[in-house]
Amino acid sequence: MLTVAMCMALVACLQAQELQGHVSVILLGATGDLAKKYLWQGLFQLYLDEVGKGYSFSFHGAALTSTKQGQEFITKVLESLSCPEDMVPRRCAELRGQFQQLSQYRRLRTNEDYMALSKDIEAQLEHKGLREAGRVFYFSVPPFAYAGIARSINSSCRPGPGAWLRVVLEKPFGHDHLSAQQLATELGSFFQEEEMYRVDHYLGKQAVAQILPFRDQNRQALDGLWNRHHVERVEIIMKETVDAGGRTSFYEEYGVIRDVLQNHLTEVLTLVAMELPYNVSSSEAVLQHKLQAFRALRGLQKGSAVLGQYQAYGEQVRREQQKPDSFHSLTPTFAGILVHVDNLRWEGVPFFLMSGKAMDERVGYVRILFRNQAYCAQNEKRWVADQSQCLPRQIVFYIGHGELGSPAVLVSRNLFRPSLPSESWKEVEGRPGLHLFGRPLSDYYAYSPVREQDAYSVLMSHIFHGRKDSFITTENLLASWVFWTPLLDSLAHEVPRLYPGGAESGHLLDFEFSGTQLRFSRQQLEQLVPGPGSAPKPSDFQVLRAKYRESPLISAWPEELIAKLADDIEATAVRAVRRFGEFHLALSGGSSPVPLLQQLATRHYGFPWAHTHLWLVDERCVPLRDPESNFQGLQAHLLQHVRVPHYNVHPMPVHLHQRLCAEEDRGAQMYASEISALVTNSSFDLVLLGMGTDGHTASLFPQSPAGLEGTQPVVLTRSPSKPHQRMSLSLPLINRARKVAVLVMGRLKREITMLVSRVGHEPKKWPISGVLPSSGQLVWYMDYEAFLG
Amino acid sequence: MLTVAMCMALVACLQAQELQGHVSVILLGATGDLAKKYLWQGLFQLYLDEVGKGYSFSFHGAALTSTKQGQEFITKVLESLSCPEDMVPRRCAELRGQFQQLSQYRRLRTNEDYMALSKDIEAQLEHKGLREAGRVFYFSVPPFAYAGIARSINSSCRPGPGAWLRVVLEKPFGHDHLSAQQLATELGSFFQEEEMYRVDHYLGKQAVAQILPFRDQNRQALDGLWNRHHVERVEIIMKETVDAGGRTSFYEEYGVIRDVLQNHLTEVLTLVAMELPYNVSSSEAVLQHKLQAFRALRGLQKGSAVLGQYQAYGEQVRREQQKPDSFHSLTPTFAGILVHVDNLRWEGVPFFLMSGKAMDERVGYVRILFRNQAYCAQNEKRWVADQSQCLPRQIVFYIGHGELGSPAVLVSRNLFRPSLPSESWKEVEGRPGLHLFGRPLSDYYAYSPVREQDAYSVLMSHIFHGRKDSFITTENLLASWVFWTPLLDSLAHEVPRLYPGGAESGHLLDFEFSGTQLRFSRQQLEQLVPGPGSAPKPSDFQVLRAKYRESPLISAWPEELIAKLADDIEATAVRAVRRFGEFHLALSGGSSPVPLLQQLATRHYGFPWAHTHLWLVDERCVPLRDPESNFQGLQAHLLQHVRVPHYNVHPMPVHLHQRLCAEEDRGAQMYASEISALVTNSSFDLVLLGMGTDGHTASLFPQSPAGLEGTQPVVLTRSPSKPHQRMSLSLPLINRARKVAVLVMGRLKREITMLVSRVGHEPKKWPISGVLPSSGQLVWYMDYEAFLG
Repeated sequence: MLTVAMCMALVACLQAQELQGHVSVILLGATGDLAKKYLWQGLFQLYLDEVGKGYSFSFHGAALTSTKQGQEFITKVLESLSCPEDMVPRRCAELRGQFQQLSQYRRLRTNEDYMALSKDIEAQLEHKGLREAGRVFYFSVPPFAYAGIARSINSSCRPGPGAWLRVVLEKPFGHDHLSAQQLATELGSFFQEEEMYRVDHYLGKQAVAQILPFRDQNRQALDGLWNRHHVERVEIIMKETVDAGGRTSFYEEYGVIRDVLQNHLTEVLTLVAMELPYNVSSSEAVLQHKLQAFRALRGLQKGSAVLGQYQAYGEQVRREQQKPDSFHSLTPTFAGILVHVDNLRWEGVPFFLMSGKAMDERVGYVRILFRNQAYCAQNEKRWVADQSQCLPRQIVFYIGHGELGSPAVLVSRNLFRPSLPSESWKEVEGRPGLHLFGRPLSDYYAYSPVREQDAYSVLMSHIFHGRKDSFITTENLLASWVFWTPLLDSLAHEVPRLYPGGAESGHLLDFEFSGTQLRFSRQQLEQLVPGPGSAPKPSDFQVLRAKYRESPLISAWPEELIAKLADDIEATAVRAVRRFGEFHLALSGGSSPVPLLQQLATRHYGFPWAHTHLWLVDERCVPLRDPESNFQGLQAHLLQHVRVPHYNVHPMPVHLHQRLCAEEDRGAQMYASEISALVTNSSFDLVLLGMGTDGHTASLFPQSPAGLEGTQPVVLTRSPSKPHQRMSLSLPLINRARKVAVLVMGRLKREITMLVSRVGHEPKKWPISGVLPSSGQLVWYMDYEAFLG
Repeated sequence: MLTVAMCMALVACLQAQELQGHVSVILLGATGDLAKKYLWQGLFQLYLDEVGKGYSFSFHGAALTSTKQGQEFITKVLESLSCPEDMVPRRCAELRGQFQQLSQYRRLRTNEDYMALSKDIEAQLEHKGLREAGRVFYFSVPPFAYAGIARSINSSCRPGPGAWLRVVLEKPFGHDHLSAQQLATELGSFFQEEEMYRVDHYLGKQAVAQILPFRDQNRQALDGLWNRHHVERVEIIMKETVDAGGRTSFYEEYGVIRDVLQNHLTEVLTLVAMELPYNVSSSEAVLQHKLQAFRALRGLQKGSAVLGQYQAYGEQVRREQQKPDSFHSLTPTFAGILVHVDNLRWEGVPFFLMSGKAMDERVGYVRILFRNQAYCAQNEKRWVADQSQCLPRQIVFYIGHGELGSPAVLVSRNLFRPSLPSESWKEVEGRPGLHLFGRPLSDYYAYSPVREQDAYSVLMSHIFHGRKDSFITTENLLASWVFWTPLLDSLAHEVPRLYPGGAESGHLLDFEFSGTQLRFSRQQLEQLVPGPGSAPKPSDFQVLRAKYRESPLISAWPEELIAKLADDIEATAVRAVRRFGEFHLALSGGSSPVPLLQQLATRHYGFPWAHTHLWLVDERCVPLRDPESNFQGLQAHLLQHVRVPHYNVHPMPVHLHQRLCAEEDRGAQMYASEISALVTNSSFDLVLLGMGTDGHTASLFPQSPAGLEGTQPVVLTRSPSKPHQRMSLSLPLINRARKVAVLVMGRLKREITMLVSRVGHEPKKWPISGVLPSSGQLVWYMDYEAFLG
């Protein structure tokens, strides 16, 4: 029986419907797994949330299958739809009935099918006298089908004027930067950027969706904490217990990095790392700040990752894809990645990203661990959880599963009591005995959602409300691929570590970093992968001492050679500072010295940097901040790691009066007089040289007379390779040094090394042959590849 | 009955005695507490260790008391001497009997007494036909008695030619740097440096004495770990449960820093921090490296310390020293100190030093905690103690007492199995339930001494064997005072936090650091010290906006003013970089901008440093590395914390051709053309100025025309205060800036602020009045003290 109030509500509702218009949702791939598992339920939830708020709906399940089969499938799915727990069954049944009535299946294959669909929608609108608000096309189909469908929608199924179009895309969005770009360009020819909603369902997970609101609502407490001074590390983790069995044809193409890290974990990373916009409800501001966070990510290198593969995977692939026994997959099912964010806020803070299949537990979380900067004066037995600053302090966005079994936000009680919206988050009830991240649950302020929501339901609502910040824009997508593609390329032929899976993996997959390099903590793997006899290690060899061109030669494997040279330079520096109070070191550019600079910067604790003057042996005529500049290399690999006083650093003045190496600017003469003013007798304590495959050294080139003799200490020269213009110390100046070290590394140098060993003093042909300090010492440092081939 | 073997041993012994000679030990203050408790036992132990190794001994207890009383006292002490546990009682009694026979009391007051002693020793030597090996004088007397005794020994009691003299001194060695220096000079007039053995009994504690040998014997494992890349923190702790009751007359003069930190904990600090000498058994090398460690210590500031006083102390002092009720002692009985070691090895690693009386437990330890650089892939329940790199990794030198109850060396099992000398250190037996430093004892490789030895026994042996590295040299002592004295001075009037003592202190004494500042973790103390209404905090006030000289004025409390200015500079920088790609900032020298630079360096995460050019507003004509140089301040407070590219930093060229601000070197013109080349229109984005009490700004001074007008953008000027010569931007150049900020802080500026508010444009009298950007903006930033007085 209708009461008056109900009648009035109904009227209001009908009026509102007329106001807002009609929305058609077309679910493409309506008979697929994802649709069955999540999408229909998501659409039903959308209907439950929005019905009576002024819109009318129709839901079109579409696929390639016949109308009969499709309709049967859908009928079955629709019958199993569930309502929220707090809804009375009668009301649920009533609403489900309405939803079923509004939903139907149709086959969509050809362009004509799409035209027909569009006509049907228009007819329905006209018939019922409804205004069209918009159309949602949800692509739950494989990516190869995207283009055809997109073309049909664009040409034949766009909504009428004034109504919006939203196309929802599911991953994968390409395989690397190039393929993602192609796909984006193709889609871009059919849809406007604002029409596309790329789903990363992680952004619909309640704990993930709470990261920005949490940062916003707890600004005051977090303001001083959310930075490198206070954050020790960030862990972004997704562990699965299932393996890839049954899905290897997909998995073989993607692997764990493309499957989980490039998208889900990277999205989470940006939410944690980004600068917090003033207004977090502005999609535009959030998306902009996210892009900025991408720009601050330090490029990944091979050494940024560790890879694993569960032992059964190979056999699964061979079986499912009928591969021969000899087939070995290199696809990683486990990856640990070390990410650094190169800005003032995060510099030096390690972000660990990790995901794996066949792990010991299913769990996902983001954990921000704060540094312990306290000393607690009492015995640890007396520490009280909410007072002691020495107990771990952490904030965890618990994405789901794991021992807690539900999404949650955890904040250590010794940090602060967080503010969360009480209508959607409630305090977790006590669970005695439950330990999370090293502490009992009672040590945390812990909140879980009042009502757990499936990610797809959340996202359906965001699509409907046009909240684009929960989706991946094209820029965002490409930025992520720009970040990941070089790593994926460099790892393409890496052999992943095999692991048994589950709890049996023990500590086998633990990893750790040192500097920017990640490696597995356990180095020995005798039982699991009895390798084919590993190569001898550098330390298995002695440093070889001999003569080369009648001067001392030190030869070793690269790593040891660099260590020996660094030791020798440090010893020379210490001696010079002890005797003269300062050390004048002239360094060559190029790539060979890079590992040497890194070694000096981070390993030689006794190096007297405060009393060292750094000079350049040669420079390319480019601005000092150009990546090609030798000085730039010195800056990046050495200067930013050690404290050399500003006034002890002497870049070559190649850039004066806004031009490069102009004779009339007299840069070479300026450098010469700077040397003469500061370096006693213009005699450097140590000059480090290299040798080119053409026998050049410093920037003194064969068949080019400048700098080989004469009185000019610093000269402008011309290189056969670009950039041609150079500035260089002259041979006579180099030969005044107390010590000259020549570093020669790599197989490519083998020929010139042999040649130069036999020639006499012929600097015009081979400038390196003119290096012979008049009263100083010359030492050659060559690795075995350069020296022995 | 004597066997042949025994006879032969006796003969060998007698021969050896003739070989090595006779040693006389004179214990001054033989009837005192220290002597009774430790020194006689130490001498007996020395006798036990050395008898039969070729020396003969005589022991002279000396004091001011009468011979009879002294002899009685000593007889009693000697009867209570104990032997090592493993010695059979008969043998013990026999040796004790010998020792008693060799020991006697004598009164030593006057110079004649010392002469008589010397004669007696000589007579004894002659009588027995012994060669004199040396004399040990052990000063167990108050410091005021040192000089008289030293004079007498030097003049009347030195051993004969060829024999050594060793004088052993007990702390305190002065009260601060000056008094320590005076005492050292005085003693130096009587004794050679090599004759003096200053005791710090901590160096005789077995765990402390093991630090260097441990570092030496585990070099390979520690080599990569013992540095800032791996060490998270070092804690050097001595907690006592006793209070100062009964000793307040001593304690009032010293306090905990002089009593424990300046000596014991600092010695331990140097043993941990010093570079490890190649040969740790070379006393000279060890002492040299220790001194180097002192030189690397960053100077302490008031903010480096937190102080406490147990609540009963005040009453104890008033009672014991008959002070009125109104007397309040400021003497700290608790101190926590944050020490930084400024070298490449330790930069950034916090060293916590802490000691206190009336604490919850008696314990001493040095704890080196390593960083966790690992991520462990399994649930923490599956972590295995000796394999997981995620469990704490630490090395502890457990000095004694505490829950372990004995000295020990602990190394986490996930680090490495340490090597210790098995003859003197043994593995500790399991103690189920015992947790130390967050982990069960079973998580450590734990070693304790095979035979526990009292520190004084260890040191007696070191004195006898001349091992000077276990003692404090004069250089070492003065270096320690140089380090501590400025802090002690700055804390002289600090009110320590009161604490109830024992377990009741709870978390009251916990402290933490932020940057270089230490503070108590708990800020509120309502119950304990209901203070007289605390001063309003900066945040209680709004920033005041007004006008000053017709330009905007921003006024606030200092902290807020600096924060506001830093915010404004950052906003200006971000805007400039967005519009022009770079930001040109000209900074004034002096002390006012220091907190601003610190704020910018460490708090402003969004500052575009990589695109910022830094210019100087003015400079003193001193070398750039001079502490007086404005550039030096910029280097110390800003440049070393942020990454400004080398070529964006523009120091003023005040030092050319080895001379300072010579007109003919045209430094001012060089700077002007550098500005003109790089800064569009020579118009800086922001110029930061100050204002002197005489109305000067930049280095433009009243009654000195240079730079006030004219076409020279950069000028040489003359300051009324030293150093007189300056280089400065001119007023016309300053007034070309887009924005000029004038920062004025402190009560001293009150008068000039009032004056300048009233004057017109009179730059010749008050150069600051000439600041008025022609098309830019001028903003005044004044703290309340400068503006309101």
